[in-house]
Amino acid sequence: MAQPIIALAQTAPGQALERLTLAAPEAPTGYEVDLEIHHCSVCHSDVHLVDGDWGEVKKPLIPGHEIVGRVLRQGPRSHHQVGAMVGVGWQAGACGACAACVSGREHLCTGGKVRTCVGRQGGFATELRVDARFAFALPEGLDLGTAAPLLCAGLTVFSPLERFKVGPGRRVGVVGVGGLGHMAVQFAKALGAEVIGFDPDLSKRELALKLGARELVSATGPLPSNAVDLLLVTTHANLDWTAWMNTLTLEGTMCLIGVPSKPLTVSVDPLMDEQKTVTGSVIGSPASMRAMLSLAAAHKLAPITERMPMSQANAALQRVREGAARLRVVLDRDLG
Amino acid sequence: MAQPIIALAQTAPGQALERLTLAAPEAPTGYEVDLEIHHCSVCHSDVHLVDGDWGEVKKPLIPGHEIVGRVLRQGPRSHHQVGAMVGVGWQAGACGACAACVSGREHLCTGGKVRTCVGRQGGFATELRVDARFAFALPEGLDLGTAAPLLCAGLTVFSPLERFKVGPGRRVGVVGVGGLGHMAVQFAKALGAEVIGFDPDLSKRELALKLGARELVSATGPLPSNAVDLLLVTTHANLDWTAWMNTLTLEGTMCLIGVPSKPLTVSVDPLMDEQKTVTGSVIGSPASMRAMLSLAAAHKLAPITERMPMSQANAALQRVREGAARLRVVLDRDLG
Repeated sequence: MAQPIIALAQTAPGQALERLTLAAPEAPTGYEVDLEIHHCSVCHSDVHLVDGDWGEVKKPLIPGHEIVGRVLRQGPRSHHQVGAMVGVGWQAGACGACAACVSGREHLCTGGKVRTCVGRQGGFATELRVDARFAFALPEGLDLGTAAPLLCAGLTVFSPLERFKVGPGRRVGVVGVGGLGHMAVQFAKALGAEVIGFDPDLSKRELALKLGARELVSATGPLPSNAVDLLLVTTHANLDWTAWMNTLTLEGTMCLIGVPSKPLTVSVDPLMDEQKTVTGSVIGSPASMRAMLSLAAAHKLAPITERMPMSQANAALQRVREGAARLRVVLDRDLG
Repeated sequence: MAQPIIALAQTAPGQALERLTLAAPEAPTGYEVDLEIHHCSVCHSDVHLVDGDWGEVKKPLIPGHEIVGRVLRQGPRSHHQVGAMVGVGWQAGACGACAACVSGREHLCTGGKVRTCVGRQGGFATELRVDARFAFALPEGLDLGTAAPLLCAGLTVFSPLERFKVGPGRRVGVVGVGGLGHMAVQFAKALGAEVIGFDPDLSKRELALKLGARELVSATGPLPSNAVDLLLVTTHANLDWTAWMNTLTLEGTMCLIGVPSKPLTVSVDPLMDEQKTVTGSVIGSPASMRAMLSLAAAHKLAPITERMPMSQANAALQRVREGAARLRVVLDRDLG
């Protein structure tokens, strides 16, 4: 018998999250799955949503989209098992019928993407109802307590590594060894690549090397030339793009993962004379999610996390807002 | 017995080409091949060189880098046959030892690219000495009188079609149905793609359709959305790049072939939310050259040319300078 859901919600612009009781859900139908939320980590996107940086979203806003939970109940079309541990990320649904969806690129759906905590309830709560197709079985071997950041941040860094066929013999640069970047270093290394980290804070050197980087180079320069085949830019800063293009080898690729606030300006020469490429990446497909989770489990990769009780979500948001989190904050179930 | 070479040369900045007699060459050694030049077409790069648009190059400047000729003499390391018809393009040599060269991408050589008519003699002449590895056997079936533009313009448009694996089921947009673009349309069609031409001059519609385009769309807009997987930009104009990115399908690629004068500015959204790509391309590798020539011969593809005697090279350069050429000017041997 379903219980009322306890959630942490922003009910008006600019306000802190407050405790909210939602009606107990009706029995799930179709693809619906109800999860008992065990962990939910805090992504910078949650701060943007709460702070109205992307415009105000529908209230109450219940943030959280890096979710680890247990299947409580499900509709007849769900493929999960009741009691199984699953994860949910930024995407909660897709149209299933557009060119992107039918080609396995549901993250690029043009027919109606559903975002986990925009216009619907997110993971700062006791329970969550999701589409079974966007809940992912967590493989044996993953540490559930630290797995939550994999669901959005992990996928976001893994997807371009997969798209650009990173493997042995390839050199990958990771700009920003923070919440996203520290996972990018681990995944690129696990795939067999040689990894160079770039960060303005060289005190992260020991961390970067421990995660698998060959070296940590100052992101404030001087930058090495001809050093990496793929550069993943995890920061949101408006960089000197032409200077960063110079770190690439011939025909190398610069891929944005963080979202800069201004359009990119890039010199023509590296694009033409060196046939270099500029692109970007946003989360990843369900197929990438499964591959990423398998890789993380097989290589025992885990985000570096701080743990806080979920009732401290406002304090957790503040740590992320200030850039103080080392390196992702996971909220553990204590509501209800 | 070698004869003196008659060439058309610019001997000082800003001057017209004038007739120049060069000493008869010594016997070729190593990879050297001496060609009797039969045809040489005029590329816009020749105009840039003559006009000093890229800075003044060494004088005498003897332009011409789309060359069809017959092997007269050769050194012991040449793999050609005396009497064979071969073609020479923009590249006349490479170091053979850098990462680009040893991976079959000699056109991206970083150890010392040699350009056919920069710092050395080009094709507006009776004879040319070249490196056998940058002279390409012309396959049976090519019309020799119109083949010259394939050696630079043809390679330039074919190389990105090959790099991005254009084939049946793919949609290719060609911006500018001119000297480069009219060859791009033919090659993309021959590879099985569906082709859309874009040009400010819609009077080229009949031409574009005859070359294989499905339609010709006004390049001044309104531009279609989500229309092509690969967009080859053959113009030199500084376009509204974000608007052109919108013509691409999800994860589509915009590839520059013409060289705009200003850095590119591109909005972040299409790069990230639609995972689109911006890149460029410069001529192509020797392997691409061979593939391009084979495809042209097999499909009887030919540039649309005007023919003039080589002694009229100044008038030919002026036609290209004015954009009056329909669509490439080929100079036929009449010097000597």
